Amino acid sequence: MAQSKKRGTGKPQGRRPDRFPKSEILYGFHSVYEALNAGRRAFEALILSDRRSDSRMEKVGALARKNNIPVQTMAGDAMNQLAEGGNHQGICARVAGFPVKKVGDIWSALRERTSPFFILILESIEDPHNLGALIRTALCAGADYIVIPKDRSAFPSPGVSRSSAGAMEHADIYLATNLASLMRDLKEKGAWISGLDAGGDKGLFEADLTGNMALVVGGEHKGLRPGVRKECDFILSIPIAGQVNSLNASVAGGIAMYEARRQRG
Amino acid sequence: MAQSKKRGTGKPQGRRPDRFPKSEILYGFHSVYEALNAGRRAFEALILSDRRSDSRMEKVGALARKNNIPVQTMAGDAMNQLAEGGNHQGICARVAGFPVKKVGDIWSALRERTSPFFILILESIEDPHNLGALIRTALCAGADYIVIPKDRSAFPSPGVSRSSAGAMEHADIYLATNLASLMRDLKEKGAWISGLDAGGDKGLFEADLTGNMALVVGGEHKGLRPGVRKECDFILSIPIAGQVNSLNASVAGGIAMYEARRQRG
Repeated sequence: MAQSKKRGTGKPQGRRPDRFPKSEILYGFHSVYEALNAGRRAFEALILSDRRSDSRMEKVGALARKNNIPVQTMAGDAMNQLAEGGNHQGICARVAGFPVKKVGDIWSALRERTSPFFILILESIEDPHNLGALIRTALCAGADYIVIPKDRSAFPSPGVSRSSAGAMEHADIYLATNLASLMRDLKEKGAWISGLDAGGDKGLFEADLTGNMALVVGGEHKGLRPGVRKECDFILSIPIAGQVNSLNASVAGGIAMYEARRQRG
Repeated sequence: MAQSKKRGTGKPQGRRPDRFPKSEILYGFHSVYEALNAGRRAFEALILSDRRSDSRMEKVGALARKNNIPVQTMAGDAMNQLAEGGNHQGICARVAGFPVKKVGDIWSALRERTSPFFILILESIEDPHNLGALIRTALCAGADYIVIPKDRSAFPSPGVSRSSAGAMEHADIYLATNLASLMRDLKEKGAWISGLDAGGDKGLFEADLTGNMALVVGGEHKGLRPGVRKECDFILSIPIAGQVNSLNASVAGGIAMYEARRQRG
């Protein structure tokens, strides 16, 4: 704290890494392959390990060449450094930063829809593995839009892309400065908002999750923050049997998203 | 391979660690606290870090003293070594090995029941984090028994206990040498067996998961093995939208277990 004050940044954690990098290193087969498939990031280069060769490396190499992307090889140690210790599987790519969307753009997207929408709001998910797993499940469950807060959340980093098995590369992720204000606006447009949290007033399986709606999943440690919780129309709880009293955040989110999917057909 | 043959073990991976240790080191608050609560493992000692002191350490220390378990303190470095690099949170315990049950004992347990049973069979889950998450969810969803194969599966280790947030300490886990034979016996007793796998003949939400039943969740990489798949009455698939085509094994298992829970009320 003292040090950060001396530096004059006013940030509680001292120097923080750039969360909106112009370019970054994706690593691992699924992340790189899905980023190529999605076609939303500019690729500077695909980088393959010179230590090994397997069918996945060939597959991703062929797709890169088809898209006129330069393919380089690199020694294993240099690659470990490039991926900053991440499990790269011999495959990295230097790409443009993830194309996050501004939350304001959600309104034009909603205006163009002809079917009811399902928005997933991920409030304060701090663990990149959980964020990745939740994004992966959201795409499988058919959530239309994902909203994360600008602060107090893991960011769609290469590590999150890896944890999502590349699903993040296809996801529409909106960054909100003020979740409570977004929730109020959504309610004004006729959406119902359900928060997922222990000690809710309704069981998940008793809720109506059809129509225009948003599902809010709280952080791993403290659940929904009070300011967000009070904007929810309902607080839903997953019924819990037995001696343990909590589910992993990504599993709980998955169960709720798929209950919505079941009801929405 | 050559090396393991020279050693004469006949095991494909050379010397393997003892999977049935007489004693082992639990680490992390939830694992140690829940093992104390469950009262199923003999505690040789509770070991607390001398570096820090927090409310969790006090809570677990008080519970140990109440149970006449010796409480020791240890320097941080020694503790890191004791927990073999695991995230111990300043809390370890030297305890008896996990009380796995023989699959034969499941029949006497089933005979005593007055309500329909729900057995979770975890086939070839190799990642300790996935196994821990699945065990945690199984207890929350009210699965009555968990069966894992003796080979080709992560084992209920201290790392799995940690990943289950201590839920494993309360779980009835049965070890089967031959899953296919167990499944045949269960079918003879009138249970329906559903396997969870991509490309199934039925959607999860169209299945009847009430009554006496077993749900079989396949491994992360290859799904259900053919010998196990062919003993299933149904193969159920979770409906998947969008460009990504798979869910994380622990999320998929959680969705299926909670669909059973929803139907069983």
